[in-house]
Amino acid sequence: MSHISLPQSLAFHGDGGGTIIMLVMDGLGGLPHPDSGLTELESAATPHLDALAARSSLGMLAPVGHGITPGSGPGHLALFGYDPIESMIGRGVLSALGVGFELRQGDVAARLNLATLDHDGLVTDRRAGRPSDEDGRRVIETVRNSLRTPEGVEATLIHEKEHRAVLVLRGDGLGADIADTDPQRTDLPPVPATATRADPASERTAGIVQDILDQVRDILADEPRANSFLARGFAAFTPYPTFETRYGLRAVAVAKYPMYRGVASLVGMAIDGVPDSNENSVEMLERHFGSYDFYFIHFKDTDSRAHDGDFEGKVAAIEEVDALLPRITALSPDVLIVTGDHSTPAIYGEHSWHHVPTLIASSWTRPSADVFGESSCRGGDLGVVPGKELMSLALAHAARLDKYGA
Amino acid sequence: MSHISLPQSLAFHGDGGGTIIMLVMDGLGGLPHPDSGLTELESAATPHLDALAARSSLGMLAPVGHGITPGSGPGHLALFGYDPIESMIGRGVLSALGVGFELRQGDVAARLNLATLDHDGLVTDRRAGRPSDEDGRRVIETVRNSLRTPEGVEATLIHEKEHRAVLVLRGDGLGADIADTDPQRTDLPPVPATATRADPASERTAGIVQDILDQVRDILADEPRANSFLARGFAAFTPYPTFETRYGLRAVAVAKYPMYRGVASLVGMAIDGVPDSNENSVEMLERHFGSYDFYFIHFKDTDSRAHDGDFEGKVAAIEEVDALLPRITALSPDVLIVTGDHSTPAIYGEHSWHHVPTLIASSWTRPSADVFGESSCRGGDLGVVPGKELMSLALAHAARLDKYGA
Repeated sequence: MSHISLPQSLAFHGDGGGTIIMLVMDGLGGLPHPDSGLTELESAATPHLDALAARSSLGMLAPVGHGITPGSGPGHLALFGYDPIESMIGRGVLSALGVGFELRQGDVAARLNLATLDHDGLVTDRRAGRPSDEDGRRVIETVRNSLRTPEGVEATLIHEKEHRAVLVLRGDGLGADIADTDPQRTDLPPVPATATRADPASERTAGIVQDILDQVRDILADEPRANSFLARGFAAFTPYPTFETRYGLRAVAVAKYPMYRGVASLVGMAIDGVPDSNENSVEMLERHFGSYDFYFIHFKDTDSRAHDGDFEGKVAAIEEVDALLPRITALSPDVLIVTGDHSTPAIYGEHSWHHVPTLIASSWTRPSADVFGESSCRGGDLGVVPGKELMSLALAHAARLDKYGA
Repeated sequence: MSHISLPQSLAFHGDGGGTIIMLVMDGLGGLPHPDSGLTELESAATPHLDALAARSSLGMLAPVGHGITPGSGPGHLALFGYDPIESMIGRGVLSALGVGFELRQGDVAARLNLATLDHDGLVTDRRAGRPSDEDGRRVIETVRNSLRTPEGVEATLIHEKEHRAVLVLRGDGLGADIADTDPQRTDLPPVPATATRADPASERTAGIVQDILDQVRDILADEPRANSFLARGFAAFTPYPTFETRYGLRAVAVAKYPMYRGVASLVGMAIDGVPDSNENSVEMLERHFGSYDFYFIHFKDTDSRAHDGDFEGKVAAIEEVDALLPRITALSPDVLIVTGDHSTPAIYGEHSWHHVPTLIASSWTRPSADVFGESSCRGGDLGVVPGKELMSLALAHAARLDKYGA
């Protein structure tokens, strides 16, 4: 597996270059409102983004590929220049990184759901009645205090949120080709943990997992609802080449939500503080500015509102970021990129496959419109840019790439 | 060899999704008329296609790659989502499928030309004076009645049209890496059938082919013109993963011409009836509608007229399809795609490498123009779409693809 999407001989300067800010509005791309024919971004009053667009190269980002709806992990990996197909992150690994667990090479991680089984061992509730965070944490703690694992294997249980938790196994010779034990619907028994291919490491690990799940049923036998675990998304961790190694960039991430800090730390970005509001995110960026070469700043509300199907809410979330933009442009980075990790059209209510409007502001642009939106970006100078190639553009605009060939 | 161009982990829903109609006008893309500056599609009066475009995402299809002029086989394979480079069909196989021969795994097929040799064994006419269909059929029948093949090898000769025929060899251990015996010009002897690499199966098969060609010269010794065969396009048949396997789609094809039914059946589409007119094609689509998930409907005249250099004829052929469009939109498929397998500009008179105007109509589009043509499509939301990725878009718009990654 190679994470390298730049041509190998495409080398960054050892001697530095400009600073880059990558501003990501999660799920930025949208679809036209049936009444107005305008997308969320086109409906929003964004005087500062529009002014920025007027001095930027515009284009459309294709996060993973035509027709492919990316999850947040692949979407951000692509933004960071890593091939989202070749360097697919398993859900378990993403969850473990999201809760801040420091994974090591070879660790196997899985997502856990607290679930309810009836007397016949059939799943009656795949989320154990959605326990409160406190209750979920208490149950995980109970299991943690009683769980035994084979010699040489360390099992870490971390509560995430409500009914969700993470399991990490550490030890020599573990494998992650293990089927989900979640039967995906009720009135069925959990699927036994089994290897999905003839791989001794995965077969051994599946046995360990099944033993843990069996113990959990004993330990939680008296719980009225959260009396078992369902496991899914088994994945082994392989460290990624870092931003420093790949690009010579010292990078820092500012993100309210753990998952985005997780992906950022996966590629070696520093995490220095956890903002509790969008304004606080910008303050944190201001505080960091000057100490790094690359700044990733993530705004989540655009995606959240669109998931709610709230067109006006997403419009407002975009306007809120626009209002903060002058403080970011005031930092005068050499390169400022505004984009999203994927589209989340409010009328669609989920992540989608549509291209994402994108701008790159630097001293070396070909402006084509004085408004930032899907329509202006589809006519922009960059055309359709594969997500994983955005970093090459960022580095080029920052004068950090050597010429390719003589 | 893999035919899969979608990421392996990109799974279609087991639980269904929307219906898809793919309407292909063969050779749809054109070049501007010197007088008007408008292409065939732009010159045609297409009120229904224009109305459809106004609610569609538009784009340009790049069937195989920049500058590459596809044949009909690769062009359609790409439309169906199969990598046209990796899953190249040999001409022999395409011809055999075209005449309706049911190929099996391992069959080796080649195209045959009836040809004229002089007393010195030199080719004097590579097409044997273009015999009539009747005469060509008679000659093939004569050979068929006398031909002997080695134990365990079955040779099938099928007349195609005029001087053209197909040879299929069936048996264990055959190979298809065999050079064409057609010297490509007159006054040369036929090239002996020889393996193009050190492959025992191909070497053995080349020997069988040469023996057949020698027998043919004896059998046809008294024919005044069609006294030999030239063979080319040797290809072994490997079944393709079907639409059902790859996409979970039950698919049906409606096409007047055998070659297009051949490519469609190659990817597992049902063929249920042979239409004898464009209107009859639409009737057949109407009859099938509701029984399948995916409908491929092929119109040929656009390409044929352009091959004749008949600009106005191609315009009229487009208008004829436009007039039938309301009956297709009346079926209310969830996704309707209108495209071509390649460009055949009338002023060029042949297939060409130019992009093909393409529209996708669904509930999830970003319309950008109210006219369907090369100019509007090049400014469309889809940008330039590699041919083989069109199916990913079709599946996405039909809500048939799982999200990629967490």
